[in-house]
Amino acid sequence: MAKKIILDCDPGHDDAIALLLAHGNPDIDLVAVTTVVGNQTLEKVTRNALSVARIAGITGVPFAAGCPRPLVRAIETAPDIHGETGLDGPVLPEPTLELDRRHAVDLIIDTVMSHEPGEITLVPTAGLTNIALAARKEPRIVERVREVVLMGGGYHEGNWSAVAEFNIIIDPEAAHIVFNESWPVTMVGLDLTHQALATPEVAEKIAAVGTKPAKFVGELLDFFGATYKEAQGFEHPPVHDPCAVAYVIDPSVMTVRKAPVDVELSGGLTLGMTVTDFRAPAPADCHTQVAVELDRERFWDLVVDALERIGDVEA
Amino acid sequence: MAKKIILDCDPGHDDAIALLLAHGNPDIDLVAVTTVVGNQTLEKVTRNALSVARIAGITGVPFAAGCPRPLVRAIETAPDIHGETGLDGPVLPEPTLELDRRHAVDLIIDTVMSHEPGEITLVPTAGLTNIALAARKEPRIVERVREVVLMGGGYHEGNWSAVAEFNIIIDPEAAHIVFNESWPVTMVGLDLTHQALATPEVAEKIAAVGTKPAKFVGELLDFFGATYKEAQGFEHPPVHDPCAVAYVIDPSVMTVRKAPVDVELSGGLTLGMTVTDFRAPAPADCHTQVAVELDRERFWDLVVDALERIGDVEA
Amino acid sequence: MAKKIILDCDPGHDDAIALLLAHGNPDIDLVAVTTVVGNQTLEKVTRNALSVARIAGITGVPFAAGCPRPLVRAIETAPDIHGETGLDGPVLPEPTLELDRRHAVDLIIDTVMSHEPGEITLVPTAGLTNIALAARKEPRIVERVREVVLMGGGYHEGNWSAVAEFNIIIDPEAAHIVFNESWPVTMVGLDLTHQALATPEVAEKIAAVGTKPAKFVGELLDFFGATYKEAQGFEHPPVHDPCAVAYVIDPSVMTVRKAPVDVELSGGLTLGMTVTDFRAPAPADCHTQVAVELDRERFWDLVVDALERIGDVEA
Amino acid sequence: MAKKIILDCDPGHDDAIALLLAHGNPDIDLVAVTTVVGNQTLEKVTRNALSVARIAGITGVPFAAGCPRPLVRAIETAPDIHGETGLDGPVLPEPTLELDRRHAVDLIIDTVMSHEPGEITLVPTAGLTNIALAARKEPRIVERVREVVLMGGGYHEGNWSAVAEFNIIIDPEAAHIVFNESWPVTMVGLDLTHQALATPEVAEKIAAVGTKPAKFVGELLDFFGATYKEAQGFEHPPVHDPCAVAYVIDPSVMTVRKAPVDVELSGGLTLGMTVTDFRAPAPADCHTQVAVELDRERFWDLVVDALERIGDVEA
Repeated sequence: MAKKIILDCDPGHDDAIALLLAHGNPDIDLVAVTTVVGNQTLEKVTRNALSVARIAGITGVPFAAGCPRPLVRAIETAPDIHGETGLDGPVLPEPTLELDRRHAVDLIIDTVMSHEPGEITLVPTAGLTNIALAARKEPRIVERVREVVLMGGGYHEGNWSAVAEFNIIIDPEAAHIVFNESWPVTMVGLDLTHQALATPEVAEKIAAVGTKPAKFVGELLDFFGATYKEAQGFEHPPVHDPCAVAYVIDPSVMTVRKAPVDVELSGGLTLGMTVTDFRAPAPADCHTQVAVELDRERFWDLVVDALERIGDVEA
Repeated sequence: MAKKIILDCDPGHDDAIALLLAHGNPDIDLVAVTTVVGNQTLEKVTRNALSVARIAGITGVPFAAGCPRPLVRAIETAPDIHGETGLDGPVLPEPTLELDRRHAVDLIIDTVMSHEPGEITLVPTAGLTNIALAARKEPRIVERVREVVLMGGGYHEGNWSAVAEFNIIIDPEAAHIVFNESWPVTMVGLDLTHQALATPEVAEKIAAVGTKPAKFVGELLDFFGATYKEAQGFEHPPVHDPCAVAYVIDPSVMTVRKAPVDVELSGGLTLGMTVTDFRAPAPADCHTQVAVELDRERFWDLVVDALERIGDVEA
Repeated sequence: MAKKIILDCDPGHDDAIALLLAHGNPDIDLVAVTTVVGNQTLEKVTRNALSVARIAGITGVPFAAGCPRPLVRAIETAPDIHGETGLDGPVLPEPTLELDRRHAVDLIIDTVMSHEPGEITLVPTAGLTNIALAARKEPRIVERVREVVLMGGGYHEGNWSAVAEFNIIIDPEAAHIVFNESWPVTMVGLDLTHQALATPEVAEKIAAVGTKPAKFVGELLDFFGATYKEAQGFEHPPVHDPCAVAYVIDPSVMTVRKAPVDVELSGGLTLGMTVTDFRAPAPADCHTQVAVELDRERFWDLVVDALERIGDVEA
Repeated sequence: MAKKIILDCDPGHDDAIALLLAHGNPDIDLVAVTTVVGNQTLEKVTRNALSVARIAGITGVPFAAGCPRPLVRAIETAPDIHGETGLDGPVLPEPTLELDRRHAVDLIIDTVMSHEPGEITLVPTAGLTNIALAARKEPRIVERVREVVLMGGGYHEGNWSAVAEFNIIIDPEAAHIVFNESWPVTMVGLDLTHQALATPEVAEKIAAVGTKPAKFVGELLDFFGATYKEAQGFEHPPVHDPCAVAYVIDPSVMTVRKAPVDVELSGGLTLGMTVTDFRAPAPADCHTQVAVELDRERFWDLVVDALERIGDVEA
């Protein structure tokens, strides 16, 4: 049976690909999409999400906007990577879907509480503000959620500081809340996603699909590749967010390791670091695990397969 | 015209008196009561609030329960001061009011958004978790609220640490959110409330009212006086929370001083301190002020007057 | 018997007056003077100390230069208050004294260890780098020193931040070391020194002494008064450092209160705060006390008297 | 020409082996040995150093004791690893060398200042209190020292916390001082030293030397191996400190990577972490580098060779 997920995102080039993967893969049942400030302002990422929905032909799935700013810290966005719109590069169509009238936090709560315990997986690929607020507003979701599979953090790698990753450092208090609740958390962090590089071979395979959505992905990768080279010196861009979706589709697409993870809230140099303790075997009740090694080929096959299944969408 | 307030509280002995003052005073229109973890667990303080409502004869006012834990920190309650129930001392009646079905955060948002801008004053007398979450979930309330008059903090005095006060230190991140939003904030802190001591003369005046609610207040003060003497060495107990309500009724009952206030989130010794900058005259756009000196006699007259107006309630 | 002191200073206008007071008062035996980076660079304040020695006619007292930078933090000086030389205003004579060849830290250690236990009082009126290093290099001085009477900190007042004072915040780790050693520490902080204002009446009394050193003090106060008005809005300048010397001369010139004091090392808003706990009576073994209220008249009488005793120096 | 080093240590099992390696290797000229609190109290590690000197037949080298406690933090020793004496296991002979009368800080300063610029290499294998104090007391040593090659820290590994190593976390402020001075610093951290495992094969080679010092090393490894298995779950014990000496002997025994390194002073989870920034190629003026990969065989050959050269000592 397909796994029901809520995708909480801030599109964002790699968020857009994550959305396409979740929509196109038959083992995922996308039950809701929520947005949150991150790569760009809430307004921009929400519009982007709806545009991508049109490109992908997503209908019948509620989309809701969430928090326009982090819990405690000031807003920090990533225009150097994602451009002024948050999804620079392709021309985006006007959205056709209407937003759900609920706040993302309430849509998350309602969806989790109206499904059976263990049915809903949360897949955050952005700052964790919405997820944290949902857990604080309705603590019962923590027991009811199947697991949280998030893109963010890193046990040995950082990008927004020497040791912290963007999705965590933009709202470290929210991340602290999410990692310290008792639900199972899989951290798909930079250590893993820096293996998901969109090489020319990958771009060719995607181009070969030949559809409008595939062409859209190609344009995303062109822009993303250029900014990643310019801003962070990557030869090929790491495509972070779909990795989290891929893990839900098939956990064997990556190796994971159980280890305690906590979020640093006060360090002068380490704010937002996902501090991971590998010193000893994880205790039996350890509820966190981190993604270690990606099966690159199978990962990209999943992306290509999803695009093929989506086919050519009449937008 | 009476001022419309939402009382966000964690009864708590002094919260109970604040509720009686707000209900009995004709210049206050109590439009909602919300509860939050603090002096005791959410379950206990919520039940206490409803019991006090019955004692005071409050009807037609929505009461809603809010957050069962602080944003980031672990729960810390104050049984040394308020006992195991949070309102030890008097025998409490079974509540007769039913809780509003909404979450306190939503009741706060709905109430503020359904009134005119500038109509609703927030009066938090507990940890600021509910207020912070409301501001994050619906940022438009910040512009719409008339002002926030809160009991908490202190510019020179602390009680839960050398320099921090209970309501702030139990959820410093929430306090940071509330103090850093642009709404007007009046901090009625320990510097002020340690002047509101329930001396024997005060107790006599209250006893002289002769009603059941007055007798209830007398019993509250007996218990509260004993624990404050035991736990903090006070000769007479400081009755914190009604001071914030008194300021809303009549700002001239205390002197205030404009000054920038911020909340320390990372200090090893100073976590939760409400850092107040008196070094220079406050800038013109300073939105925070702190309560300095109480007109004790008028304050207690307000409390006694409210009890007299409430009269004997058929509970 | 006169009290033997080591004055550890960073002249500095008020340091210069402290030096004159220590030299001129018959109840003080100035056994060494050490300098440390603070109001200006080590080179400048050391030269200033020697120039003041010439003005005051100090001979036979070893002067030694100490640390050119704080333990951990970057150098921060106070040119807005003390000017580019650290002693702007008067024309300074070329020094005639030669520096002791020892490092200030070693002069402090040697002096303390070569006197009887309980003989030497340390009077730091600058950042605490030298004193902290001496205590770490030779821990036995801690037991041997009579007491530490320092100008620095404040329990309710700050000047370099809302809650921190210059001498502490420029080297908070050093201050942490000094306050946490077991020797008796008297903190003569801003709460006290902001009472030692050099009003026109004070300036007149000093002028009336009519000597060259008194004229020098007058010129110091003119410059210091102007910068304090400009930089911190004071009507008359607070003359901090001589207050610590005055306490050694006669503890009854101010009231003090025993209370635990510690130094905040990690707060975002409170770095370098001297956190003082007044919540309960100080424990019996409390080794720290804070200066509360100054007898202004007697304080200034001590300063004037010292100048009169110094008389006219043939420099 | 042999490289002149000062070994600053806290023996400590691996410190003892480092001392033997430095003494026995012909490319090292051991010009001074200084001790500091760390694995055990200053008194114990100083006595241990002198006992090891006797075992190794070291004469004519000044040994001086330094700081008995860290700069700011409370003393923390490692009896779980090194036992109650700091060198449990072998029977230690009474020392025959006398301590230099100078403080270690002064011996370091004197040695560096009395040699040519670029002659002396500092090799700390303990907490950095002595080195930090020397740099603060005599800042000119920083320009004069050839380089600092230290055992401590780790870029991806921790042992005393998830992300911090013992030598750094016991005095993070001292480490901050050392890493932030402009001298070249090579961090031989856990990432490297966890490759220097004393396997049975290693133990056999050492036993085969057949001398008393070699037998002593064998006994050290027996004890160290048992405690490392018990306390940290290592199959074979990592022999940290000689790795730093080995790098001085022959830098090609390990690969290194230039990268900015700083020390976290305020993190709740990350205090004492040596935060290393690998995100981009190190800037041209980067003065820090970290050890990455050890040539195990050559490393152990150096140790065995030193023992063979030392031969049988008449103690």
